[in-house]
Amino acid sequence: MVTAHHAPGETRPGGRTARTRQAVLAAVFEELGDGGYAALSMERIAQRSGIHLATLYRRWRCIEGMVCELLADLSADVLLPDTGSLPGDLRALSHAIGAFYGDARRRSLIEAVVSAAARDPEAEAVLREFFDARLTLAGRMVVRAVERGELPADTDPKEVMSALGAPFYYRILIARRPVDAALAESAATAVWAAARAGAYARPDGAPAKGAGEG
Amino acid sequence: MVTAHHAPGETRPGGRTARTRQAVLAAVFEELGDGGYAALSMERIAQRSGIHLATLYRRWRCIEGMVCELLADLSADVLLPDTGSLPGDLRALSHAIGAFYGDARRRSLIEAVVSAAARDPEAEAVLREFFDARLTLAGRMVVRAVERGELPADTDPKEVMSALGAPFYYRILIARRPVDAALAESAATAVWAAARAGAYARPDGAPAKGAGEG
Repeated sequence: MVTAHHAPGETRPGGRTARTRQAVLAAVFEELGDGGYAALSMERIAQRSGIHLATLYRRWRCIEGMVCELLADLSADVLLPDTGSLPGDLRALSHAIGAFYGDARRRSLIEAVVSAAARDPEAEAVLREFFDARLTLAGRMVVRAVERGELPADTDPKEVMSALGAPFYYRILIARRPVDAALAESAATAVWAAARAGAYARPDGAPAKGAGEG
Repeated sequence: MVTAHHAPGETRPGGRTARTRQAVLAAVFEELGDGGYAALSMERIAQRSGIHLATLYRRWRCIEGMVCELLADLSADVLLPDTGSLPGDLRALSHAIGAFYGDARRRSLIEAVVSAAARDPEAEAVLREFFDARLTLAGRMVVRAVERGELPADTDPKEVMSALGAPFYYRILIARRPVDAALAESAATAVWAAARAGAYARPDGAPAKGAGEG
């Protein structure tokens, strides 16, 4: 056992806890590149990060917690566009998602996160809340589009954003083929056409007053 | 160790091998209902099915092989419609997929299959080939639609069918919320609008001569 000099969960920027966290998440990401999800283990992450195994277990409990935290961390790099039109925003975000998942380590990561959620109710709750928050944030582009009159007022922003993401997760998890620019282009074109056709209308016909309501 | 009276892999209908297979797959399905993927183990399946553990290991090697075989088995029950129009076919199939995944055991099964593929290259190959074959079969409705002049000749049948399935897998694996009739309706409406807008055109513009070419 190592001795904790700081309280667990302390996140003083640049402090020991923050450095430990960065070292561990970087090690998880590199391990995903080396052996994918199958080879991931607390022991290997401890070895690669140089952080004591006991510290890992104290802070993350298990692999499931680590992969969920890494996904949240990396996804912050996918910026939400504001190009002035919904087709422009959808296309920019779709290509950003495509570029994100162009990296095999990130495809392994989403596999790891989904596998974690299948086994661990706590990881499942983290995953559900994480994507819900992302959909609400990204849904702002749909709220702006409704305000500009590009889409009907009863369009559900989260359903639109779910539909934009869905083809990528299908490709990675189900079809198990690489993500490419053609998929990103297809997803953006499809969602724009479908949204105009009313495919994402709220069943109750309620107008979208804000993305947070979805 | 039990003694094998028949060669492994023999599938004489109604024979001992077929009965064993049915008992084991039924036990896997029931176990998924009881404890989901997390609780699945060879020991529990042996206990529930009444088949010796050694027999299970000899025929399936691991849980991964069993869940892939169960998915293939159950999916045969989702019949491919031929209503005379593509919107009708899409709507019928979408509601059939929605009904299929309305059962929590089937949602646990797809989680189990995706988790298996993340860990085991052999399970991944089985999953990829299984969905590829399903997409080709279902793609016949798109080939018929092109022949009827409902869609442009360069429409990729497999891309259309992937887009129909994607929202269900996103809902189950990523958003982690229940599948409902509203999702089925939305998916069918979306794919029809997107296909007409050219979202699933082959990048090279080649006409679809048959669903098997995709």
